[in-house]
Amino acid sequence: MARTKIKDILQREDNEYSVNIKGWVRSFRNNQFIALNDGSCMSNLQVVISLDTDPEIVKHITSGASLSIDGTVVPSQGKGQKVEVKAAKVEILGTCDPEKFPLQLKNRPSLEYLREIAHLRFRTNTFGAVFRVRHSLAFAIHRFFNERGFVYLHTPIITASDAEGAGEMFRVTTLPMENAPKAEDGGIDYREDFFGRSTNLTVSGQLEAELGAMAFSEVYTFGPTFRAENSNTARHLAEFWMIEPEVAFNDLKDNMDLAEDFIQYIIRYALENNREDLEFLAQRLEEEEKQKPQQERSEMGLIEKLEFVLNNKFERITYTEAIDILLQSTPYKKKKFQYEVKWGIDMQSEHERYLVEKHFKKPVIVTDYPKDIKSFYMRQNEDGKTVAAIDILAPGIGEIVGGSQREERLELLEQRMKEM
Amino acid sequence: MARTKIKDILQREDNEYSVNIKGWVRSFRNNQFIALNDGSCMSNLQVVISLDTDPEIVKHITSGASLSIDGTVVPSQGKGQKVEVKAAKVEILGTCDPEKFPLQLKNRPSLEYLREIAHLRFRTNTFGAVFRVRHSLAFAIHRFFNERGFVYLHTPIITASDAEGAGEMFRVTTLPMENAPKAEDGGIDYREDFFGRSTNLTVSGQLEAELGAMAFSEVYTFGPTFRAENSNTARHLAEFWMIEPEVAFNDLKDNMDLAEDFIQYIIRYALENNREDLEFLAQRLEEEEKQKPQQERSEMGLIEKLEFVLNNKFERITYTEAIDILLQSTPYKKKKFQYEVKWGIDMQSEHERYLVEKHFKKPVIVTDYPKDIKSFYMRQNEDGKTVAAIDILAPGIGEIVGGSQREERLELLEQRMKEM
Repeated sequence: MARTKIKDILQREDNEYSVNIKGWVRSFRNNQFIALNDGSCMSNLQVVISLDTDPEIVKHITSGASLSIDGTVVPSQGKGQKVEVKAAKVEILGTCDPEKFPLQLKNRPSLEYLREIAHLRFRTNTFGAVFRVRHSLAFAIHRFFNERGFVYLHTPIITASDAEGAGEMFRVTTLPMENAPKAEDGGIDYREDFFGRSTNLTVSGQLEAELGAMAFSEVYTFGPTFRAENSNTARHLAEFWMIEPEVAFNDLKDNMDLAEDFIQYIIRYALENNREDLEFLAQRLEEEEKQKPQQERSEMGLIEKLEFVLNNKFERITYTEAIDILLQSTPYKKKKFQYEVKWGIDMQSEHERYLVEKHFKKPVIVTDYPKDIKSFYMRQNEDGKTVAAIDILAPGIGEIVGGSQREERLELLEQRMKEM
Repeated sequence: MARTKIKDILQREDNEYSVNIKGWVRSFRNNQFIALNDGSCMSNLQVVISLDTDPEIVKHITSGASLSIDGTVVPSQGKGQKVEVKAAKVEILGTCDPEKFPLQLKNRPSLEYLREIAHLRFRTNTFGAVFRVRHSLAFAIHRFFNERGFVYLHTPIITASDAEGAGEMFRVTTLPMENAPKAEDGGIDYREDFFGRSTNLTVSGQLEAELGAMAFSEVYTFGPTFRAENSNTARHLAEFWMIEPEVAFNDLKDNMDLAEDFIQYIIRYALENNREDLEFLAQRLEEEEKQKPQQERSEMGLIEKLEFVLNNKFERITYTEAIDILLQSTPYKKKKFQYEVKWGIDMQSEHERYLVEKHFKKPVIVTDYPKDIKSFYMRQNEDGKTVAAIDILAPGIGEIVGGSQREERLELLEQRMKEM
């Protein structure tokens, strides 16, 4: 019989049909009730085995063991599930020594502990939920851009360019480290390296995507990028997947519309397709927050935050307006901000969160930043002080999207490059 | 007015409606007819401008210039297109010096020449078609696996492991090449490198995907992989995107079914969504083949090859049967094969293409290869000589998919590792 996934069984309204299911034992109680999980969803399926099942089989039904079960889906007698499977045949595909299996703690294992058993992490509820949500978001990203006619580009990972000087780079080389060939000037002779020159891992696909946009009008990248910064914060990763759309004919307003539509589209997709995973993560977050002092806890739960972003039209204000709001704010007047507020600063998380969470109570797009804190290629505004840049600020995080209209006037671009 | 893409205009059945279009001039003739392309499809849209258009504007309508045009879609007076745009307003977004623009050769520019102007390659028909098809295939890959409930994993790019010894690796490092820190034994002290150990670019996501499959049942990777082999062939790339599905409970037949369904699904998607691009590439290939001696030309055109793979159930034979067929073949008997044929060889392209193109005239899945030419982790068959491996052979290429059922019997796996 062809295997049926647990998710499909739990989503069906009917019962009284035959199935084969395969998965891993989460728990086994009373020598009769197996909680089986196959990773297709968070929920386990309850399997009831007959009390006269061969003891040779029963003794191998332990947490972590892999089973194949033929049976019938029937209405559940017990509480907590609508249906269960009455097993007709149980086959042990893989045994698991209960003395050695490290994932049977009654309490939730810590993330630090799970690092030590990384090969089993995917089997936990937390990693399961995170990776199912990540899958959905990745698929929604591709679907969003495909529906709008964007061309997906795989930009080079190994490159000789540095995009915008976004951070420290990883070198990629096949030269011997012990004894790299020397050039006449005493430096390394990269002509002998694999590509005949010095190369590194990409920090951004922006440069190649811009060339693509000049031919396809609308392109996007979605691939790994790398930063060799030695920062241990929740916002720094050495390796991460980044999404970079580039559109040939957009002005700043078009960019804002695109970014807002995009964020709402992928959040809606996850809420519709991963409700169970998100509810688990929301509950987990809530428990974690209980460990924190009152004033550091989020005002909103995870689902609430997502719905907040989904259901509010994003507020659009200029940087200058944002600074004015901060200068008029109670925390500023009461000297509660840790960092200085004045026109020209690169806003800190506390400022961004004040704007989003306290003042507007919706996601905020800040536009027209001072040119000195943004990249040289952003389009210069008439005022001579600001550029057509945007940052999108979201609750609990701060900046989640950064972008700009590019400077298309060659003489202004060249002048800006000379200044910097 | 919001911009309309050329693809959408050409796909509509009606006309007599207002549009704004934006794109790049491919050609301009008789001071009146602009062939405009925006990359949304291969075809240009003909724009007819009034003979009394401002000469200051007309002089900037040159190949490569970027325009925004407001006008009306009307039935075309001329041949070669159903509709054209009667321009009401022409705006020059970007000028292009016709003396310097390198893409106006009447003859098709060579791929070698295009390498020198890589920033403009995307604007050619060839690169346009290739990248639109690549986009479609990438999207179809994600859609195929998503529909079947596979979880998409982003496996690490920077890694300390070597998967299956698939080839030479690129080192990733932040150590100074001129003066890398030495360990006590005289080698490099990688404890001072970014990750505290020696790392390289991944050659395969297989190891991580296998762990994912042991939790989610069905996962796939689709990301860049790297081989530092110094081979200049059409089949070797230093950096390429690879798809690796891993399924927890599949046997060899399930793997074959999955691979066959997958290949047919993505080809069908491209044929349905990129007909125009594929027809262009087919014609281009045909012209290229005319330069070759008769006996080296393909028997089938590109579209024909794709339909051949789509419309034929793949033949499934064992390696042993494949060798028997080769030993009975006319080219073998007439000593036309360049490479030896006997049980135990790693089949060459000429053997694979004989099976596909001459003998079966359909794609062929060869199973149960000799264990000595396959990886240690493939499931050992009862005969003690072969393993549960598959290669899928396609016309004109040879192997396009390789796979196996993994050895799940620990003692046999360990024994095989000792032997190798």
